[in-house]
Amino acid sequence: MEERNKSKSALTVNSGIPQPPQVNPNALTHIRKNKKDKLSVSDYVEGILSGNISILSQGITLIESSLPKHHIIAQQVIEQCLPHAGKSVRVGITGVPGVGKSTFIEALGVQITSQGKKLAVLAIDPSSERSKGSILGDKTRMEVLSVDPNAYIRPSPSAGSLGGVARKTRESIVLCEAAGFDVVFIETVGVGQSETAVHSMVDCFLLLMLAGAGDELQGIKRGIMEMADLLAITKADGANLQKAMMAKAEYTSALHLYPPAESGWDPRVLTCSSLEKDGIADVWNTISDYIATTKENEFFQNKRQHQSKYWMFETINESLRESFYDNVAIQNLLTKLEEDVLSNKLTSFAAAQMLLDKYFDNLKE
Amino acid sequence: MEERNKSKSALTVNSGIPQPPQVNPNALTHIRKNKKDKLSVSDYVEGILSGNISILSQGITLIESSLPKHHIIAQQVIEQCLPHAGKSVRVGITGVPGVGKSTFIEALGVQITSQGKKLAVLAIDPSSERSKGSILGDKTRMEVLSVDPNAYIRPSPSAGSLGGVARKTRESIVLCEAAGFDVVFIETVGVGQSETAVHSMVDCFLLLMLAGAGDELQGIKRGIMEMADLLAITKADGANLQKAMMAKAEYTSALHLYPPAESGWDPRVLTCSSLEKDGIADVWNTISDYIATTKENEFFQNKRQHQSKYWMFETINESLRESFYDNVAIQNLLTKLEEDVLSNKLTSFAAAQMLLDKYFDNLKE
Repeated sequence: MEERNKSKSALTVNSGIPQPPQVNPNALTHIRKNKKDKLSVSDYVEGILSGNISILSQGITLIESSLPKHHIIAQQVIEQCLPHAGKSVRVGITGVPGVGKSTFIEALGVQITSQGKKLAVLAIDPSSERSKGSILGDKTRMEVLSVDPNAYIRPSPSAGSLGGVARKTRESIVLCEAAGFDVVFIETVGVGQSETAVHSMVDCFLLLMLAGAGDELQGIKRGIMEMADLLAITKADGANLQKAMMAKAEYTSALHLYPPAESGWDPRVLTCSSLEKDGIADVWNTISDYIATTKENEFFQNKRQHQSKYWMFETINESLRESFYDNVAIQNLLTKLEEDVLSNKLTSFAAAQMLLDKYFDNLKE
Repeated sequence: MEERNKSKSALTVNSGIPQPPQVNPNALTHIRKNKKDKLSVSDYVEGILSGNISILSQGITLIESSLPKHHIIAQQVIEQCLPHAGKSVRVGITGVPGVGKSTFIEALGVQITSQGKKLAVLAIDPSSERSKGSILGDKTRMEVLSVDPNAYIRPSPSAGSLGGVARKTRESIVLCEAAGFDVVFIETVGVGQSETAVHSMVDCFLLLMLAGAGDELQGIKRGIMEMADLLAITKADGANLQKAMMAKAEYTSALHLYPPAESGWDPRVLTCSSLEKDGIADVWNTISDYIATTKENEFFQNKRQHQSKYWMFETINESLRESFYDNVAIQNLLTKLEEDVLSNKLTSFAAAQMLLDKYFDNLKE
């Protein structure tokens, strides 16, 4: 307006009418509010405790983040959720690829949510053990469960060491429990080291098996069978039913030869069909029986306490090892001494001592 | 003499005739030579390589000593023996008390020495697992073997942590092999953690079992059955024979349900009677079969290399843990934080991080 009044020259540019902002300012506030960086610790905690699934998801993303600033917020969120955690039944589920794990989890999951219970499904699969492609696959394979309002399926973190993934999974359990989930599944593929990790963070450990103890067993690591509280033979339907019943009898008698478990519970063998929904209710009833039995004899509570300690010590021990083996001076010497040990020039113990001396000298510098 | 000439006073004391030394000087030299402190490194090495059992025993005593000066000599002796070691067959033998381990070892041992082979029997039993009294007991129970010139029975070291005892046993194997023993038994009681240690230092792992898979199994830790390359059901004689044959059938079918072992060897179940010397030759033939099979498919060689590396890394990891947990500042904080973890005030991971920060700060001071 002023420009127009001051001069009438042709060089004058009209200032025009004011334009609205290019981006809707309300939308911007809305977007910012939904970005995980912008939520405060108490936003997270309140959201999770109120059962807000979107905020729970963001909280787990924060746990999975490798950024130090996210780590600090995550720790505060977890700490405030801790007093509200611990009330779920934690079930570990493992089995080799091909055993029908996703369809089984879907069938068992629906069985649980149909009783009005809330179910969270987490996965613990270090990146090395599984292709990234299957992460999404899992969720889309569980068609019914993924749209069930009482179920929450969290795809596995896409990368990291077993120790890192285990920590993230265990911390995610805390958030899920604080958000009010009654049952938490931790699933893993039965081919690697992750079963021990899963076994150390669940109350009940379920091994899925195929009928016919032959080639199918190739993929299963020795020792996993002895960890199982419950063995379910899947795909017990149609032409496969007879074979599954025979396998059940065989495994049942084999399990009796094992030394008795500390839990005071005799591991059981069941057959089921995710396709025909047969035997699925029985699996859930058996898990519930197991929980009731071990709560009564206090194995449940003792195991939880033992697990808390286990993960504290395991984290310490893993960090001590990392500090040693990631030390560049150690790495060079290790390569040389390892050769001397393998060619019988040095005992394993003498080599270890030389490396340890080097390491502690190095730390003091 | 001079005194006598100088004065005749009553105070003069005759010097008397020279007396022989109170201790025979030749005897002293002889005793010194036999004392372990006085042997040089090359005395030890030459003695051991020539198969001198007395010097071998002293060498092992040196390994078991906790004195630093003994440790230094021991390491030099072991290093010089190493190139001559590795040629024996190392057999781990375990079973709960009552299974008849001593009589079994005596029977199997005589079987081996009667073929002109030299046998050493070592024990790996951390002090906590066995009363000191039984150490001598073992040796006297093996009446025939203990006077067999081709057999060497070494009672178990009387004290120490599992890691310490494992190191001593593994180093003793080196000396026994350098002394020309063809077969080395490492025996342990099947109730503790020592089976994993034994399994990690032998070529073939033998589990002794009693017929009747009931109460007898109580003492055996879960997971041990899966380690066994050979399962021998003992006391298969008299009224017990029928039961033993049934147990054999049961275990054989049970073992088939296990995932196949990496060794390419199907674990076998045998029955035997140490009393009637029945089936004992079969046990030895099966061990020999196992060795031949695994040498041919190179599992034997790979396992030995793997074990050498295992003990290097295991020693490092144990020392790292000791350095941490023996730190007084850590011990005080650990007690406090452990309580916080158990009462859900702190996650296992947050507690671990606080302790680690404290430890590394402490080391730098």
